[in-house]
Parts: sequence; C-alpha cells; structure tokens
Amino acid sequence: MENSKIKAFIPLLYLVWSDDLLTPKEFSTLQEFITSLTLLSPEEIQFLLSKVDISNPPSRNELTEWKSDIEKSIKDKSSIKSIFDIVVALSDKDLNISGLELKFTKLENDLGVLGEELIQNFKTKADSFTASSQTNTNFDVQKITEILDGTEAAIIKKVKSVISRPEFAYETSTDINVYRQTVYNWCKILADENLGNMAYPKQYGGGENIADYFAIMETLSYHDLSLVIKFGVQFGLWGMSVQSLGTEKHYAKYLKDIGSLKIPGCFAMTETHHGSNVKGLETTATYNHNDQTFTIHTPHEKAQKEYIGNAAVHGQMATVFAKLIIDGHDYGVNAFVVPLRDTNGNVLNGITIGDCGHKMGLNGVDNGTIRFDNVVIPKENMLDRFASVNDKGEFESPIPSDNRRFFTMLGTLVGGRIGIPRSALAAAKSGLTIAIRYSDQRRQFGPEGGSEVPILNYRMHQRRLLPHLAKTYAVHFGLQYLTSRFLNRTESEMQDIEALAAGMKSYSTWSTRDILQECREACGGKGYLSENRINALKNDTEIYTTFEGDNTVLMQLVAKNRLAEFRKSFGEMGSFGIINYVYENARTAIAEKNPIITRKTDDEHLLDNQFHLQAFVHREKTILASAARRIKKLIDEGLEAYDAFNVVQHQMIDVAEAYLERVVLEQFQITIEKVEDVKTKEILLKLNQLYALSQIEKNKGWYLEDGYMEAVKTKAIRKMVNQLCWDIRPDAVSLVNAFDIPESCLAAPIAV
Amino acid sequence: MENSKIKAFIPLLYLVWSDDLLTPKEFSTLQEFITSLTLLSPEEIQFLLSKVDISNPPSRNELTEWKSDIEKSIKDKSSIKSIFDIVVALSDKDLNISGLELKFTKLENDLGVLGEELIQNFKTKADSFTASSQTNTNFDVQKITEILDGTEAAIIKKVKSVISRPEFAYETSTDINVYRQTVYNWCKILADENLGNMAYPKQYGGGENIADYFAIMETLSYHDLSLVIKFGVQFGLWGMSVQSLGTEKHYAKYLKDIGSLKIPGCFAMTETHHGSNVKGLETTATYNHNDQTFTIHTPHEKAQKEYIGNAAVHGQMATVFAKLIIDGHDYGVNAFVVPLRDTNGNVLNGITIGDCGHKMGLNGVDNGTIRFDNVVIPKENMLDRFASVNDKGEFESPIPSDNRRFFTMLGTLVGGRIGIPRSALAAAKSGLTIAIRYSDQRRQFGPEGGSEVPILNYRMHQRRLLPHLAKTYAVHFGLQYLTSRFLNRTESEMQDIEALAAGMKSYSTWSTRDILQECREACGGKGYLSENRINALKNDTEIYTTFEGDNTVLMQLVAKNRLAEFRKSFGEMGSFGIINYVYENARTAIAEKNPIITRKTDDEHLLDNQFHLQAFVHREKTILASAARRIKKLIDEGLEAYDAFNVVQHQMIDVAEAYLERVVLEQFQITIEKVEDVKTKEILLKLNQLYALSQIEKNKGWYLEDGYMEAVKTKAIRKMVNQLCWDIRPDAVSLVNAFDIPESCLAAPIAV
Repeated sequence: MENSKIKAFIPLLYLVWSDDLLTPKEFSTLQEFITSLTLLSPEEIQFLLSKVDISNPPSRNELTEWKSDIEKSIKDKSSIKSIFDIVVALSDKDLNISGLELKFTKLENDLGVLGEELIQNFKTKADSFTASSQTNTNFDVQKITEILDGTEAAIIKKVKSVISRPEFAYETSTDINVYRQTVYNWCKILADENLGNMAYPKQYGGGENIADYFAIMETLSYHDLSLVIKFGVQFGLWGMSVQSLGTEKHYAKYLKDIGSLKIPGCFAMTETHHGSNVKGLETTATYNHNDQTFTIHTPHEKAQKEYIGNAAVHGQMATVFAKLIIDGHDYGVNAFVVPLRDTNGNVLNGITIGDCGHKMGLNGVDNGTIRFDNVVIPKENMLDRFASVNDKGEFESPIPSDNRRFFTMLGTLVGGRIGIPRSALAAAKSGLTIAIRYSDQRRQFGPEGGSEVPILNYRMHQRRLLPHLAKTYAVHFGLQYLTSRFLNRTESEMQDIEALAAGMKSYSTWSTRDILQECREACGGKGYLSENRINALKNDTEIYTTFEGDNTVLMQLVAKNRLAEFRKSFGEMGSFGIINYVYENARTAIAEKNPIITRKTDDEHLLDNQFHLQAFVHREKTILASAARRIKKLIDEGLEAYDAFNVVQHQMIDVAEAYLERVVLEQFQITIEKVEDVKTKEILLKLNQLYALSQIEKNKGWYLEDGYMEAVKTKAIRKMVNQLCWDIRPDAVSLVNAFDIPESCLAAPIAV
Repeated sequence: MENSKIKAFIPLLYLVWSDDLLTPKEFSTLQEFITSLTLLSPEEIQFLLSKVDISNPPSRNELTEWKSDIEKSIKDKSSIKSIFDIVVALSDKDLNISGLELKFTKLENDLGVLGEELIQNFKTKADSFTASSQTNTNFDVQKITEILDGTEAAIIKKVKSVISRPEFAYETSTDINVYRQTVYNWCKILADENLGNMAYPKQYGGGENIADYFAIMETLSYHDLSLVIKFGVQFGLWGMSVQSLGTEKHYAKYLKDIGSLKIPGCFAMTETHHGSNVKGLETTATYNHNDQTFTIHTPHEKAQKEYIGNAAVHGQMATVFAKLIIDGHDYGVNAFVVPLRDTNGNVLNGITIGDCGHKMGLNGVDNGTIRFDNVVIPKENMLDRFASVNDKGEFESPIPSDNRRFFTMLGTLVGGRIGIPRSALAAAKSGLTIAIRYSDQRRQFGPEGGSEVPILNYRMHQRRLLPHLAKTYAVHFGLQYLTSRFLNRTESEMQDIEALAAGMKSYSTWSTRDILQECREACGGKGYLSENRINALKNDTEIYTTFEGDNTVLMQLVAKNRLAEFRKSFGEMGSFGIINYVYENARTAIAEKNPIITRKTDDEHLLDNQFHLQAFVHREKTILASAARRIKKLIDEGLEAYDAFNVVQHQMIDVAEAYLERVVLEQFQITIEKVEDVKTKEILLKLNQLYALSQIEKNKGWYLEDGYMEAVKTKAIRKMVNQLCWDIRPDAVSLVNAFDIPESCLAAPIAV
C-alpha cells in the first residue's frame, strides 16, 4: 500500500502518534477526515484508518520510518508552514490535492495544533534566537565597583577582609544558644578591630567617622544578618542613644566600654502595648526627692519592654525610655541608663528578663522582654541632653513641649533609619548575585532537538530578576544621597531628612522583601535549601519592614511631611499661591498632555531621561496636590482631622511612594551624569532606563487614569521593558559581580 | 501686659511651643510676622517677641494657662476653622484685626500647619468616626462553616478531632532529627486512624474515597505543614504512583502496607539537573534479557534524585522514574519500584542517600538525594500500567509515543495539584485568622484625647487584609470546583482538568504566599515570633510555589492549553472562524465599550455581579486572542515557535491568570446563588464584590489600556473597594471564625 498517495498522509499519521496529546475525540475527528477524502479509494481509506486505530498502534520502527520520510522531504524547505505544505511536499505533486487546503487548515484547527510548531519537529535545527544569548563582559566590572563604593572604598575593603576570615565561617547549628554566642564572639572581634566605635568621638576612643560607620553596617550585611543587627544594637542603638541623648558625664563613663563591648547594652523603647505609638509608653521613672534617685517601674505586664535586642542573654545595661514623673506630674517620655545584669551576667534585683524565643529569623540576636519592679537608679543616670531634673528637684528643658522634646530626641536617632535600609540593600545584592549567577548556569528546556538553555535566557526569568537588579542599583544611589544629606545636615533640614530617612527605610526594605522573594522562587528547589542562603537573607530581613518603624506607619509620616512642605510652598508663593499653583500645574499638565506627547512611542523618547524624570515629577506633584485637596474637602465636610487622615491612608502611601521614586530616579540620573567612562556610562544608563520604565509600567494604571499617557504609549513601554531586559541579560552576571561581595559571604553552592 | 489685644495672639504662642515640630526658621517667620503687626504698640510687640524666644521658653504653667484660655474661648464653637478664627474669638471683638485674615492665612501656610488640625487640640472630643467601628456578628457563623465544608463535613470533623489530641502538640525542638521523628509518629497515628489509605481501593484496605482524601489533606494543613507534606509523600505520591502507574500485582503487594505506613516510601522523580523539564531525566533502567531484571543507574552526579521526601531517613522503597533502555534503545521515562532500605532502616547496597539538610521550612520532612549504582531489581518491579517488557524482552505499550505515554502517566498524578493548593488555602486561612483576630484587639494611636483604636479600624490595615480574606473565600470555591471536576472526570476532559489543576495550584499557592506575607507584616513584631506561627505557615508554604511544578512554568502550560482551546473553538466555527470570532468580539466590545458603560459609576452597577463577570470574561477573551495573534505574527515573521513562545512568556502569564480569575469569580457567584439564608447570602455577596472589584482594581491598567473602562470608573472602583473594606470590617472576625480552625492548631497567643 506504500503508494505516494498514501505517503502524503504520513504527517497526519505521525501526528496522531507523536508527542501531542490527542484525545479519543480527536482520533475520531481524524477518522472522519480520512473517510471524507473522496480522492482516495476505499482500500486506501481503510488502510489509513487502520493506522489511526487507538487499539492497534503502529510499531516503533514504523514511527521512526515515518519521521525520517518526512524529514527527508521537507529538508531545508523554509517555505513549509503547515501540515498541508508537508502533504504537498510528500505527495511529489502527483496527487491532486490542491483543493484540499481548506480542509487541512480546518483539521489543524479541529485538532488544536499549530502547524508551524509541528513542523519544527522535522526541520534541521536552525540556531535558536533564545538559545543564542549568553553572558558577556561589555564593561569593566571594577569601574562599577568603584562607583558603588565611592569614598568609602577603604573601610569597605577592611570590613570585607575581616568577615572573610575563617573565624567568620557561618554558624550552622540550629541551637539558638550556640548561634547567639557565635554572633556575640563575632561582635567582639569587630570591636577589637575598632569597627564598633567608629562613630564615637575620638576623645572616647572612637573613630569619629559616621560615614564609615554606615559603610561598616552595609558591608557587614553581606555576612550573617544577626551579626549586623547585634552590632547595630550594641554600637548603634545603645551607644548612639548615650551619645545623642546623654551629656559629657555619660560619654566619659560609658562610651569607651560600649565601643569595646565591655558593656553590652540594650535600647529599651518598645513595649508590648506600644510599638508604633511610642508616645504612649507606660514605663515610669519616678523622681525621689529624698535621695535624688529615679524609680523605674513597669506598671503592668503589657507595659514590659519587648523585642529588646541584647536583652535575653548579654545586655548589662539599657537605655530605657520611660515617662518621667515628678510629684505626680507627668513630664513625658525621657531616657535613662538602667543596669540589668552584673559583669558576671547575673540579672539584678528588680529586673525580670524574658526570652522572645525562636523567631522567623535573626536567631543569633537575643531579643528579650524586660520588666522593672521599682528599680532605683541614681539621678545621674538620666540621659539629660534635652531634659533634666535640677538640684531642687524641678524639671528643666530647653524644649517645653513634652511631645516636641520626645520627637527631638527621636530625631537624633535617625541614623538607624539609614543603617537599616543600607543593610537591606546589601541583602538584596547578595540574593540577586546568587539568583542571577545560578540562572546563568541552570539549564532547563530548549529548542526541539537542541541543548537546554540557561534559564536566564527566558523572558519571564529576565522579567523576574532584571528590573529588580536595576532597582537595586537605583536604590543604592538613593541611599548614598540620604546618607550624604544626613552627614551634611543643618538644623533647618532635619524634618525633611527625617522624612526622607523614614521613606527610604520603607522603600529599601520593601524592595528587599520583594527581591528576595523573587530570588527564592527563581532558584526553585535550590533556593529553598538553607545552604544556598536565600533562607537566611529572606527571613532575617523580613523584620526590617517592621523594626526601626513599621513601614506603613512611616509612609504615612512621609506623606504628612510632603503635605506640610506643599502647604509651605503655597505660603512662599503668596496668598494666592494655591490658585497660582493649580493654574501652573494645569498649564504644565496641558503641555505634557498634548496628544503628541501622551502618544509618543519612538525609542528615543521612551529611553529619554528627561521624559522619565518629568513623568515621575508629574506623578509626585499631582498625587500630592490631589491628596491635599481631598483632605481639605473631608475636613470642610465636617470630619475630624484624625478621621480624614484615616480615610485617605491608602492614597497617602502613594504620595510617599511617588516622592521616593522621584528622589531615587533623580539621584541615579545625577550619578550617571558624572560618569566619564563610556562603557560604564552605557550600562548604567540602561539600568536607569529599566528602573524608570518598569516603575512607570507598574504605575501605568495611574498614568492612564491621569491622562498623562495613552494606551499606545503604556503598551510601548511594556515592550521596551522586555527589550531592555533582553539587552541587559548578557551583562547581568557582571553587574552582580560588580557588587563585589566576598565569595566566603555569598557561600551558596549554586552561586559558585 | 495681659490685655485682650495680647490675648488674641496666645494661639500663636501656644502653637510655637506646642507639639508641632517648628524649626528655627519657622521661629523667625513668626517673629517677622509679629514685628509687622502695625496695630500693636512697640511694647506689645516686644512682649510677644519675648514669648517666642527659643532660648527663653515659657514655663509649663504658662503653657497650661494658655491652653486653658484657648479651650474656654472656642468651646463648642464649631464655626472655628483656622488660627484666625481663634484669634477673633479670643480678642472678644475688641481688637480691630479684621484686615489681618490674609496675613494669618499666609502665616498658616508659611508654618506648614493645618489650622483645622491644630484646632482639634482645643476642642471637646466629639466621637471619632474611625474609633466607632467594631466587631459585630451580623450572621450565623456556623451557616458559613457548613457551606465551606459541604459534603465533607464528617471527615473534616474527624480529622480536626484527631489533630486536636494532646499528642499532636506542636514540636518546638529546633533539632531537625527530633522534628522528623515527631512528624513520622504523627503520620503513624493518622495511618492507624485509616486516614492515609482513604483513597485506595477497598479490597486493599482503603476507603476508596478520593473526595475525603483531599478533605483530609486540607484539614491536616491547619496543623503542622511538615505533617501534611510527609503524609502527602507517603500516601499520595508514593501510594498513588503505585496505584496509578502499577497494576494488580503491585496493588496486592504494596498498597495495604503503604496505607498502614509499614512501607514508608518515596516518589523519586526530580533530579538535580532536571526539575521542570522532567522529560529530560537521565537516570536509566536498563533491561537485562538474561535474568529478566532491570539495572537502575545514576549516570553522573547531577542525575541524582534530589529533594526526595522521605528519602533522607524513613523511606524503604521508592517509585523511581528512569529512562527505560532495551538493547541500547531508549524507550523514554517509565516508573519502577526500587527498594532503598531494609526493614531495619539500613541503606541497601548500591544506594547512596544524601540529606538535603536544613531548609527554609518543612524541616519535619526528611528530603534527600538518592544515587543508584547499578542497582538490580526484578522485572515485576516495573509499574506496568502504561508500558511493559514482554516475555521476549520486547517493549510493549498501548501508547507508542514515549512523550505521550510519559505525559499520560503524569496526568494520572494530577491529584497532587489538587491537594497542594487546598493545603495552601488552609495555611492562608490560618494566617488570616491570626492576623485578623489580632488586628481586632491590638490598639495603637487614636483620636487626640481619646482611647487608642483597634488597628483593624485603620483603612490601610483593612486594605492589607480584607481583600485577601475575600480572595481566600473565592479561591475556596474555585478549588471545590476543581476537585469536583476531577472527581467526575471523563477521558475527554482530562487535558482541561490538568490545565485547570496546574493553574489553580499556581493561583492558590501564590495567593497564599502574598497573604502570609501581608499577615506577617500586619502583625508587626508579634508576627515575627515563632510562637505566633506565621513563621512556620509562611516558610513551610514557601516551596508550594515550586514543588508539584514551578508556578511560572505551570502558568505557561495553562496558557498553551487556553491557546489550543481557542484554536479548536475556531475550528468548530468553520474555516472562517477566526474572522467571525474577531468580528463578533469587536461587536461585543463595541457594545460594552459604549461610553455610558465605560463611564458608569453608580453603586448599583459597580456592585453588580453581571458587570463583574462580564469584565472578567472580556479580559480573559481579549488577552487570549491578543496572545494568539501575536504568536502567529511572530511565527509568520520567521521566528521558530520555541522563540516565539519565549517572546510572549510575560503575556502568557496574563492569559493564564485572566482565565483562572474568571473561573474563580464564576464559581464563587454560582455558590452564592444557591445560598438561601438571607444574612449568609448578604455577607458572601459583599466578599464576592470585594474580590471582583479588587481584582479589577489590580488590573485597572489593562482595562484602561483596552478602553473597557475609563478613568472615572476605575477611580470609582478604588473608592468602592475602600468602602467594602470598611463595611466588611465588623464581620471580619466572624468570617475567619467561620473557617472553624481548631484553637489548638492556631495556637498563636496573639490570636486568642
């Protein structure tokens, strides 16, 4: 029966029995099709039907022959696009089938197969576009590292060399007592290296270098994050609270021993019932006139100090925040140094320590609860920079408002909100280094007949990781800017800097949360094994979104600061400021909303820095003005301010986010402008474009609602994001290598 | 100097020294303002200036007097809205200040203060709107539980009673050996209760009830998730692979002992180098004609079996997937029962077991690696339902294509993709129960002078948790639907059901990931403590997005299935189907895109089920057609299918998601239609509306791009989502209580 008429139907037969999962229903479809072919004889039809009988499959040899026949016939015929084309090729033109094309097309549809795909199976493999992409080095990695490290390169190098020593091998014990002790020992080594006291005044043995202190925090974060948090509690929270809230006598008494870790200590602010709303702390410090002492007391169980780092095991002293009471009068929250343990580690009388126990992460840090049962401390233990009790037992302060004083005190501690986001950023860099290196090596699937392809060549995988890589670079420069503003601060800028720090803390820690989540999933099962460290990175940083201020609460503060600034800028414009502003804004918006702009989609425009920044600024301004109007309207309608702010909470997050994104983009752009090396500039520009466009894409709903962009443009942006991911992919490994994380810190077997 | 002229300026003085954080710059602003007041005498100006001298603050008593003066003057005067209004009230109208209004307004602006807010400080507290919301019971909780449990109520009740026994107290040891043994012991108890063999045929001691088996998996997931996974490995993966891939002789030999846990076993498919692409597995099973045996062999290290549950410690046997080789010919991947350990737990010759070690979660499951060094097994150990080697040593199979056979085999194992998403859903329910109960009790901040307010009263907190609550209900009914389709499956539906299972597995596990993340953050520091169980829930379910098929890969499969269905529906429409479809679609779109509809924002419309479903269906259809067109275009342009599919990967995720969301919404709506009790129906409807609108809000960028909605409508939807959250808040605690999770399972101290 092997005539050429029959031969023409081999592709169909092969199709039935090949890899495609045809169902019994589709078998019958094919049987009907064959039966309907009037140009075949009944015998020929019978023969073909016998070959699509589900209970009587062809032999493997037969299948192999069919395949080879087809391959021979269509070899190198690129014109072949459908099953019908194969049929024609196989029939050697001796069969009159030209009228059957529609029937075959219908069959392809009925079977739900894509002719083009099917044909791939038979073709000699051309090079796959997807398979062709690979890692390349198009720029000098070290030049990027130098830009990232900037003026802190020396201290970064020193810290890296310390944490790469053998004694910093990661602790693998799941016993939290062992882990806590290891972390303590590490802290001691760092103290001995004079890294802990870096920020303290030189006269107390310190390095008097706050910039270096932040760089230390960030670099340590390439290593175990329990270490950086324990380090931060001891030298940052505990030491800096003494330095910022105390006076000379406290510096002389404590700073040197804090810096050397001779006095491990705590920062005891949070209470069980008061975390975000610290103004409401309930611990009391009652002044005793008779012997000039304070009695520190926990009035009820829920007023105990909670989550206090260094409390459960090592802390010998604590800066305790408590309401100062003199003669029954409450003078608001103030700070006191309270001893917790003797030098042998025995808990002192009146102190009750609890252990927070096992946590989601950071189990190398001994968080605990502290309760005070009428603990008496000498008067000199009050940290008295902003308030004191005089010899007559009277309260004195240059800041009469209790709240204002308290917030001034908190303001001096803003450094924590710089250290934490920088630590979070470092963790994101570690995660991305592991995930991107792995994705460059891990192969899975591939073109039919070809080798498997690195998973980083897949568009979804690029989409999952590369915008995060771009964002990490962007946030890096945003945090550099925050640090520099803090280091060069003047009194009048403090509120803005505090808001920026609160905002960048939230932006960076949320970003890290998202990045490490994606890294975990992108590494599949390997990402779940603790040996590959994404577990530790992710779970340790999980609390970063909560401590040093809950992100959601902080974002509300940032938004309130923006609203206040907004009102001030009206003031400066004069009484009719608002009207002018609205008019100006409308005019700008009209200019930018010119249909030629809202629909502009050429590459040059989409990749233009100015377009990006304008779009970010427009969003920032518009959302802010809209929130301000809405709050005013709600209050005019009779709502209390507290209620009005609650109604707009969701919008306030956008106000803060739009502000932060603009700052981050702007700082990234300013940094790039200063870069001279062409190749370096080129790749940083691409990352900047990817950051800008992927943020716009994320916010496209807003831009479309606002009318700033039309659908044609947001769609073009989506495509451009895909394209940028594809273009950056060959440089991705070099870009994570530029973070220059010590291999001993990365440690993940999959990242080698 | 206390004349009434001066008195009028008290509000300003108070403002300077009050809680607002005025900067030195703002002090000078105020000083300039005072100096400019021509209606005051030089002495009066001097006096006022002396009261805004930063180096000479007023006494606390003075401040208190000022405050009380202000309060007395403005008491109950609701007309007072600005600082100027207070000034007027205080001046007793005897000061000619009417011309100063603009100056005061400018001052308010310059200082960046909101007069309205400031005034709240002085007013007698009215009831706060925000503070007034509280938990209520508006419906019968048990009625909802009955709807959720449905026909499985009896088995659910039984499982809950078992896991509430004292021996199921959570394991708190961090020693993974202890934990693994505890989980094993729990599995033994469940086996003794005849819960493990629930799905097996009655003749082998089973319950022959697959519906109950799924309900058991789901209910066990309220307890330790290592337990449910170990249980699933033993009774699901290991047992069901024997049942689905083996024949009578295997059932008789193994099923009873698997069901009783006498033979702990493994499901050994994944290899280090092949996870998603299991078609490429490299382990070999070579047939030996001489003694009718197979030699199981691991050709190189990266072909070892990896992540295999039950392998590291307990497994005595495994279903091993390996390429069958006969006479040098490769017959594709088949399954074989291979002994690993003797009954004393000693590893057998030729077997090398590795331990995956510590993982991010599920540390009660002993995952391991397995290597085979020429391990010989008898011929009867081949699970031969779909393929076998006959007495002559020839390969036989009713499915000649190797790939098709393999995918048919995998298809019989689809049950795992039902058990896992149901388990994930249960974990989300636990997390939400903990977070919502806590948010209802946890108080923080409050109206000035009032008590602190439950954090669930804050709009952001509602936004964070309540759409997730609605989604959890929605997914519940989606998974009920999936289960029911699986239980009532016919051969011709299998591909669709497999796609639905793959999709719902991804949708549910990603949803759980997001929900538990939000729950952790919403519980702040408490959410970080292991005692509150979000740690375990979150880290244990983390791998759910990877195992039983990586979600991203599964979503591509779902999308391909939708594309195939799409092509078939063309087929059914005839050769000109595509043209007709496009025409029909355009017509529908034109009707629905009528400006009256795209801009319709009345409540009735926004809350209308029909509107929701139409919007979901429109999205599903449009995205699918657009992806189909795009792939066709890319292939027409000369791209290989493999490359074309890579280019659209990102869009394929949307294709799959839009399909799943439509299914979930539809099933939720169908369920509600059947509810008769009015109160029950009412609250479920609200949840359904919240699910529908929050998904539309999430996808608003798409709806705006498509033109299906205009900005006015998406904005109205955002407001409606806020409103629904506010409306559902009093019922939130009852809605999580309706999940009816045993208190001993919840166990979190904060959820009591």
